[in-house]
Amino acid sequence: METHDFTALAATLRDRRRKLAEKVDFPVLLWSGRSIPRNFPHNTFPFRASSHFLYFAGLPLEKAAIRLEGGKMELFINDPPPGNTLWHGETPDRDRLAEQIGADAAYPRSELLNRAPGSATIGLQDATTCLMQAQMLNRPVAPSDAPMGIDLELVRAIAALRLAHDAGALAELRQAAQVSVAAHQAGMQATPQAKREAEVRAAIEGVFIAHNMQPAYGSIVTVHGEVLHNQAYHHPLQAGDLLLADAGAETPNGWASDITRTWPVSGRFSPTQRDIYEVVLAAHDACIAQMQPGVEYQEIHLLAAQIIAEGLVNLGILRGKPEDLVEMDAHALFFPHGIGHLLGLDVHDMEDLGDLAGYAEGRERSPRFGLGYLRLNRPLQAGMLVTIEPGFYQVPAILNNPEFRDKYQTVVNWERLAQFADVRGIRIEDDVLVTDTGTEVLTAALPTAYQEIEALVSQALG
Amino acid sequence: METHDFTALAATLRDRRRKLAEKVDFPVLLWSGRSIPRNFPHNTFPFRASSHFLYFAGLPLEKAAIRLEGGKMELFINDPPPGNTLWHGETPDRDRLAEQIGADAAYPRSELLNRAPGSATIGLQDATTCLMQAQMLNRPVAPSDAPMGIDLELVRAIAALRLAHDAGALAELRQAAQVSVAAHQAGMQATPQAKREAEVRAAIEGVFIAHNMQPAYGSIVTVHGEVLHNQAYHHPLQAGDLLLADAGAETPNGWASDITRTWPVSGRFSPTQRDIYEVVLAAHDACIAQMQPGVEYQEIHLLAAQIIAEGLVNLGILRGKPEDLVEMDAHALFFPHGIGHLLGLDVHDMEDLGDLAGYAEGRERSPRFGLGYLRLNRPLQAGMLVTIEPGFYQVPAILNNPEFRDKYQTVVNWERLAQFADVRGIRIEDDVLVTDTGTEVLTAALPTAYQEIEALVSQALG
Ligand SMILES: [Mn+2]
Ligand SMILES: [Mn+2]
Repeated sequence: METHDFTALAATLRDRRRKLAEKVDFPVLLWSGRSIPRNFPHNTFPFRASSHFLYFAGLPLEKAAIRLEGGKMELFINDPPPGNTLWHGETPDRDRLAEQIGADAAYPRSELLNRAPGSATIGLQDATTCLMQAQMLNRPVAPSDAPMGIDLELVRAIAALRLAHDAGALAELRQAAQVSVAAHQAGMQATPQAKREAEVRAAIEGVFIAHNMQPAYGSIVTVHGEVLHNQAYHHPLQAGDLLLADAGAETPNGWASDITRTWPVSGRFSPTQRDIYEVVLAAHDACIAQMQPGVEYQEIHLLAAQIIAEGLVNLGILRGKPEDLVEMDAHALFFPHGIGHLLGLDVHDMEDLGDLAGYAEGRERSPRFGLGYLRLNRPLQAGMLVTIEPGFYQVPAILNNPEFRDKYQTVVNWERLAQFADVRGIRIEDDVLVTDTGTEVLTAALPTAYQEIEALVSQALG
Repeated sequence: METHDFTALAATLRDRRRKLAEKVDFPVLLWSGRSIPRNFPHNTFPFRASSHFLYFAGLPLEKAAIRLEGGKMELFINDPPPGNTLWHGETPDRDRLAEQIGADAAYPRSELLNRAPGSATIGLQDATTCLMQAQMLNRPVAPSDAPMGIDLELVRAIAALRLAHDAGALAELRQAAQVSVAAHQAGMQATPQAKREAEVRAAIEGVFIAHNMQPAYGSIVTVHGEVLHNQAYHHPLQAGDLLLADAGAETPNGWASDITRTWPVSGRFSPTQRDIYEVVLAAHDACIAQMQPGVEYQEIHLLAAQIIAEGLVNLGILRGKPEDLVEMDAHALFFPHGIGHLLGLDVHDMEDLGDLAGYAEGRERSPRFGLGYLRLNRPLQAGMLVTIEPGFYQVPAILNNPEFRDKYQTVVNWERLAQFADVRGIRIEDDVLVTDTGTEVLTAALPTAYQEIEALVSQALG
């Protein structure tokens, strides 16, 4: 990385902690965490720093902490141990790191015992680190989705900041989006030669790896898109199948992307597949067209439900007025999840805070089948990045559920539905930035039109 | 997976627990562990079951435990929660899983409270699971490298079993080796078109992913092979560089492989690179030729040291008699690590037990610079799988160390060494099975001869 990148990074971080200082008047201590052993201590999962730490410290420093107060930042990290260079080469020492991130002071970790007490914090996912946080602060630290006192105040302040992305964040998010677009293109182009889902996944994740990025979440690459969180990749690809790929890259500094496309293994959608694809795409496009600051995200979700219901009525799969169908959650038979979620340092941004970031204060999850899975329920604001990901699925666990069969017996034309048996699951997902005047789709370089998707898949055949 | 695979698996597992029952007369309780959160609870690292659990339970079942006693196995696992099929599709229930692995009985996890006490166990790496183990057993559970009482007896019994691989293990290990060989070939062939290390890594790990495998450890793919555990991939590839790739696949059931090859980015070794390569390869070949049951692994390490010392004397880099040079650890200036390690379910097999598996009872790490990094110090026995991985590195932290400069001032011809500046790091690593009569190299399909390496790299150019 060039020196001037660090200059920009330090300026971004300074700006973030100044904004934090406007919201809280107590010191804040954020830990990065440690590499977590996989099967033995020296074989760890790839290190992932806490997102809250990354937001204010910029770099994924292991076993580090920062203390923020009045717009100043102190860094706590130990210098590399003697012998480190033999195994890991030259690595920057504490003072160099402090300089890179623009910290105002830097101390060994042992100094935390003196500087920690009285600070607010957010508990890490890793129990070992969380225990250490409590020891350093000399008080209990609640799980991150149930903070109390100044920790809750801190969570509300950080959530407010992280909800609207600054230029530094957007630069990272655009990189993640760009690599993810290239990865999906590679996945499409690899499909005609692939025999199994795993080979398409390899093409997609290979692009991440080639760009020094990693998956922001476990990729879904499946011909069984009706299994919503399918993470098996062993199924063979067969001519009539649709392949659903939900995969996004994460930059080395932790910023995520999240894209889904669905394409025909053969390079050609069947007429029934195309019909449903067009319904899902219409919902996708209508949602994005409707987004702007002030609009409620739940309204966007309900708009998708409405368009899907309309489309299914037009195809003869549902019967009735779309408004009534949505009212009775009939759309959720085929679109059982939320229209999307926040995106940022986490693929479900700040989900470690439960619904404290996703839901406006005072709002709670709906008990309704067609609303309860919505992860975001706030008015949109400029700088917010969200996914828009409508879908259509034939989930046996839903469609064969006797209660649902009974409740929706007359509104579903089951015989007509049977004609769409080759559509198990379709989802189209993009990363949409709310701007002052509307939206910017960060992942727009990846086509959504079925003709263009077909062309990308068929390209490798030609 | 086909039904008959499960029949074979169940037979393998039955055999393993019968052998365990011959060694211990107390019940044994082994936990699999859980998926560990990465940045929020629903975004986890890919699940990795405990290797001891995998050895006796065969499948990577999450949040499961097995109780072994008198050759019988009880499985403790909860049925999938209601709603599971919506997100994860149909998954086998407890009884089906018990049948697949040949368990004699199966219970929900809550039954552990009754069945656990009095059992020996091995503490998991995950602190949360380890705490739960202690709660279920109603006693403290020490870290896995410092067990006490029946836990220590158990560790010794399991280590004795896992030291010699059975046919079921070897079938998995051969699969891992085969995919790793293909991956290295892909890495070599991708090199001429690659601009950065990351692109070669993508080609290698892409083959793992395409075969539904994952890296058994963090891949090393670097033009700075002198940094022994280098896990940065951002360096550009330049014509005169050697690229060192240490990468191995792990099968879905957890069995590992571990291969290193070093190849010229240009497709052609320089004369100095070839000279050193031949020294390392001579050590590699001599070690493998010398291996058979009863031979001390440390003797194999010292043989490598001897051959490397001889080779460097012949090249004029070291001065003196090879035996004397090894005696004074002069080889370790350039070959500062051990000749290899156990390989099995873990890439450093059973390293969660510290040296309890790697070192024969009563043996301890040597304080010698040239021996202290040896991870295995036992007589070889049939069925043991080890790596043989001699290397040559110019590590600045070693060669510029004033103490070493002083001690080895006269035995190193520093001017001659300077002529080999284009050799920063070379390692050649294979997975070698000890057989009744000698060895079988599981990774032999990947060439080691420099001409063949050159041909593989150049193939893509032609
Ligand atoms: Mn998403
Ligand atoms: Mn190795």
